[in-house]
Amino acid sequence: MRDFSNDHSAIALNTATLGHMLDGHGAGWSPEQVIVACAARGFAGITFWQREIGSRAIEIGERVRASGMHVTGLCRTPFLVGAGAPSSLEQAKEVIDMAAALGASVLTVVTGGTEPGTKGVLESQKILAERVAELAPYAREHGVKLALEPLNPMFGGNRTCLMTVRDALRVCDMVDAPNVGVAVDVYHVWWDTSLADSLIEAGDRIHGYHLCDWLEETGDMLLDRGMMGDGVADLKAIRGAVETAGYAGPCEVEIFSAETWWKRDPADVLDVMVERFKTVC
Amino acid sequence: MRDFSNDHSAIALNTATLGHMLDGHGAGWSPEQVIVACAARGFAGITFWQREIGSRAIEIGERVRASGMHVTGLCRTPFLVGAGAPSSLEQAKEVIDMAAALGASVLTVVTGGTEPGTKGVLESQKILAERVAELAPYAREHGVKLALEPLNPMFGGNRTCLMTVRDALRVCDMVDAPNVGVAVDVYHVWWDTSLADSLIEAGDRIHGYHLCDWLEETGDMLLDRGMMGDGVADLKAIRGAVETAGYAGPCEVEIFSAETWWKRDPADVLDVMVERFKTVC
Repeated sequence: MRDFSNDHSAIALNTATLGHMLDGHGAGWSPEQVIVACAARGFAGITFWQREIGSRAIEIGERVRASGMHVTGLCRTPFLVGAGAPSSLEQAKEVIDMAAALGASVLTVVTGGTEPGTKGVLESQKILAERVAELAPYAREHGVKLALEPLNPMFGGNRTCLMTVRDALRVCDMVDAPNVGVAVDVYHVWWDTSLADSLIEAGDRIHGYHLCDWLEETGDMLLDRGMMGDGVADLKAIRGAVETAGYAGPCEVEIFSAETWWKRDPADVLDVMVERFKTVC
Repeated sequence: MRDFSNDHSAIALNTATLGHMLDGHGAGWSPEQVIVACAARGFAGITFWQREIGSRAIEIGERVRASGMHVTGLCRTPFLVGAGAPSSLEQAKEVIDMAAALGASVLTVVTGGTEPGTKGVLESQKILAERVAELAPYAREHGVKLALEPLNPMFGGNRTCLMTVRDALRVCDMVDAPNVGVAVDVYHVWWDTSLADSLIEAGDRIHGYHLCDWLEETGDMLLDRGMMGDGVADLKAIRGAVETAGYAGPCEVEIFSAETWWKRDPADVLDVMVERFKTVC
């Protein structure tokens, strides 16, 4: 397991941590401000959300690399299944185009929920696999990896049909494309006692590792994630399992926190992230 | 699999469905009113909450049986682990006494969350197993079965350290007492693609099956459960798995629904329950 106590060079920022995934939240730093602040702190990279990029994907990607960092990812495709999914894959292809223009290593896929007219998750997983299989070659041509992200089961119904890493691997197996893997996010998987076994099975299909914490008293399903160390997730055990499976990539801090961290000065948030990364992750 | 289309004699009411688990909710029917209404509709039994029983356990239990029904259960023990757990097991023993006085077949155990000073769930599960092992002989002497209820992972942290039936079985294995098993609640397990395998392993340790539905748009973690048929849970598949594992007991409807069903006339709620039980469960 990597020793982060004196080396935080694997840390990456998901800009959701600064409130950048939603209008009206956070301090509203520009991508340029974010890039300067992360580079100054020795970050490995930055994962952006579509709404920050607009038509400036090439410019922002180049600026990140000129600052000595990587664009570690882009969030995210539209839902691919469920009531909230667009009727075609065109929007998803446009997001793949954006990821390619940014030079983003990984595009995160939040799947969407249970397909109308079906019950449970198994039928939706099959439909998802068909749609991912249609997107995968297009993404591969553009040099983009797709990371299927299982969500905490509380997001079943309208947001996801993948609740565990094992679920996501079953869909990866159905798709069977070299650029399709999984994203492992502490918020979504911390509770799963079969996680370590699933990660071994995932092996080199782990396309990302996302850090935050699960607060003992979680007040809001979506926007009350904790800073690492403030909750009950066993962060070292989870990273140990991720690295035992072979993952050696960036560790991306992604904290949706409307009432706490999004109200703090982004520079302070970044400083706390680094300190916690070195001490509790 | 049992055919409920013309026989709803397996239906039971958990009085939470009428708002009876919380002060200030529901129509406030007395236990006597509930008993009359359930008996008139041919229910198998009723599961009560402690707050309805007070010092009248023997009287209420006898009245249920005189009406041709069973007391299918009592909710619930205080937390046994985590920050919300009392410092001793005395309160839990008092609830066992109440279950015995009621003649309740099963006492539900909601475990409580992550033990202070620990991370994740594994340590808490071990502590839980020690405490359940201390309670199990006392419960057995009083003719009470204990049902460990895994909760949806969104309740991790402060309410549960058991997120799946498999987690609950691991604790049952550690306890190894003949009166300790699991409760299977649709709200908590509907998303679990390993459920059928876990239930086979559970076998005769399934001490209860709880019905409701998972609404596609769940607005509140605790108090927005759906009536059967209104959500996305695959109710027939889940019951099929429960019965394939050998369960042939009551199916207890437990719907926490502050904004919908708790605002309806309880008689209407019971009628809808019966109709949905026969058609979609």
